[in-house]
Amino acid sequence: MSDLDRFSFNQATAQHWALPDAVAGCAAAGLDKIGLWREPVQAYGVAATAQLVRDAGLAVTSLCRGGFFQQDDWYDDNRRAIDEAATLGTPVLVLVCGGLRPAERDIDAARQHVGDAIGALVPHALDAGVRLAIEPLHPMFASDRCVVSTLGQALDLADPYPAEAVGVVVDTYHLWWDDQVWRQITRAGAERRIACFQAADWITPLPEGVLLGRGLPGTGCVQLRRFREAVDEAGYTGPVEVEVFNAEVWARPGAEILAETIERYLEHVA
Amino acid sequence: MSDLDRFSFNQATAQHWALPDAVAGCAAAGLDKIGLWREPVQAYGVAATAQLVRDAGLAVTSLCRGGFFQQDDWYDDNRRAIDEAATLGTPVLVLVCGGLRPAERDIDAARQHVGDAIGALVPHALDAGVRLAIEPLHPMFASDRCVVSTLGQALDLADPYPAEAVGVVVDTYHLWWDDQVWRQITRAGAERRIACFQAADWITPLPEGVLLGRGLPGTGCVQLRRFREAVDEAGYTGPVEVEVFNAEVWARPGAEILAETIERYLEHVA
Repeated sequence: MSDLDRFSFNQATAQHWALPDAVAGCAAAGLDKIGLWREPVQAYGVAATAQLVRDAGLAVTSLCRGGFFQQDDWYDDNRRAIDEAATLGTPVLVLVCGGLRPAERDIDAARQHVGDAIGALVPHALDAGVRLAIEPLHPMFASDRCVVSTLGQALDLADPYPAEAVGVVVDTYHLWWDDQVWRQITRAGAERRIACFQAADWITPLPEGVLLGRGLPGTGCVQLRRFREAVDEAGYTGPVEVEVFNAEVWARPGAEILAETIERYLEHVA
Repeated sequence: MSDLDRFSFNQATAQHWALPDAVAGCAAAGLDKIGLWREPVQAYGVAATAQLVRDAGLAVTSLCRGGFFQQDDWYDDNRRAIDEAATLGTPVLVLVCGGLRPAERDIDAARQHVGDAIGALVPHALDAGVRLAIEPLHPMFASDRCVVSTLGQALDLADPYPAEAVGVVVDTYHLWWDDQVWRQITRAGAERRIACFQAADWITPLPEGVLLGRGLPGTGCVQLRRFREAVDEAGYTGPVEVEVFNAEVWARPGAEILAETIERYLEHVA
């Protein structure tokens, strides 16, 4: 078993690398996994992407993202996302659950709606063989991207549904600050909910809008290996995605980003 | 009892209003309370500030800030802060506990150090009659300003020490996203730890560096009145400070900021 056996390159780490180039680049680097996003997949064509990754010998470890349940079309859009994941053959659809509606202040109601919406999607997810993976996002995104802010909350939301239908994402960037996270990772493992593990580092100062503030592994203050060992200890044996949104990283050539990501993964995560 | 009886204007809301003008402005608005910061107080002189506020008929509801325990001079600096609070006659020294040291990744150790440092300051705080108030800051500040990110953590840190020596700050801006906050407010009341209540609203997009992203009450998505009612329900009867860091607000004349703050406080918090 090579140290890269579990590594998956999330394409968002090289945002401007065209999908076929990213797929070819991963294969050329000897990888057999990639994480994809809906927008570039839709632009290339879902069936065409499925063929592309299959021909390159890659498995799709996750599709980002369903969710955004505060939008009026959440039901139809998430059913489409499930179908797209099934076509790609990925077992995991990552859910970024959405923030508050404009002028809304009732975060409890928004969270309740997220739970209800996931429940409404469970039958279709089970039919399609796609697992819905609730991703808690850092609390700085609570109002505009995701009202689910901790792993404990994500597990509470998943609780009413079968583990094969609804899991959670453990992303170091979003969870590193939480003193309850180690206990909740243990819980997530015991409840067989860990659907996806993603690594990114925390760096400051945060940029305007805070979305593109993540760091490649080892550039920040997160105990990345401790997280990887914790999910392993909790029984997770799946892929380890590196997913970094950072404007400076994105400005570089895709192959160069991939090479540094692999190097940093080996040094700080594996 | 007027609706403004509990209101205290934190001077940081009008960052560029000179201290004597802010004191005079609060008195002219019929207020009897103000929250102060160490830097402007030191610049004006601590004893001179004490005289100034006394002459204006104002009480100082809190002094910001002690803490920053990751700095080498934390002990001496915090003892000075306690002395300054005592001179001002304020019962509360707000602690912003500090982030990680450069290149440090062990947040558990940093949190342990915060607890130990507070313990080392307790005797002097008791002698001076000043209560150390641990302020949990939003998790987006965990690495560079405050490793204490939730009210539950703050209460755990306070737990070994007498309630008259160590309390907590409940600040809506930092805590609004936390689904555990209501339970922890109840706990904080039962443990007689609520030393200070501060209100500010959450607005997006966050600016670069995220420090100056707060909104005046009613401009964002926080259930401010629900928080005020929750601390009341938990037995808190002290002042309600409004403390907003916002570059656009700061650019306006101090008296105008104060007038709008009072208006918004009455509409959204009182």
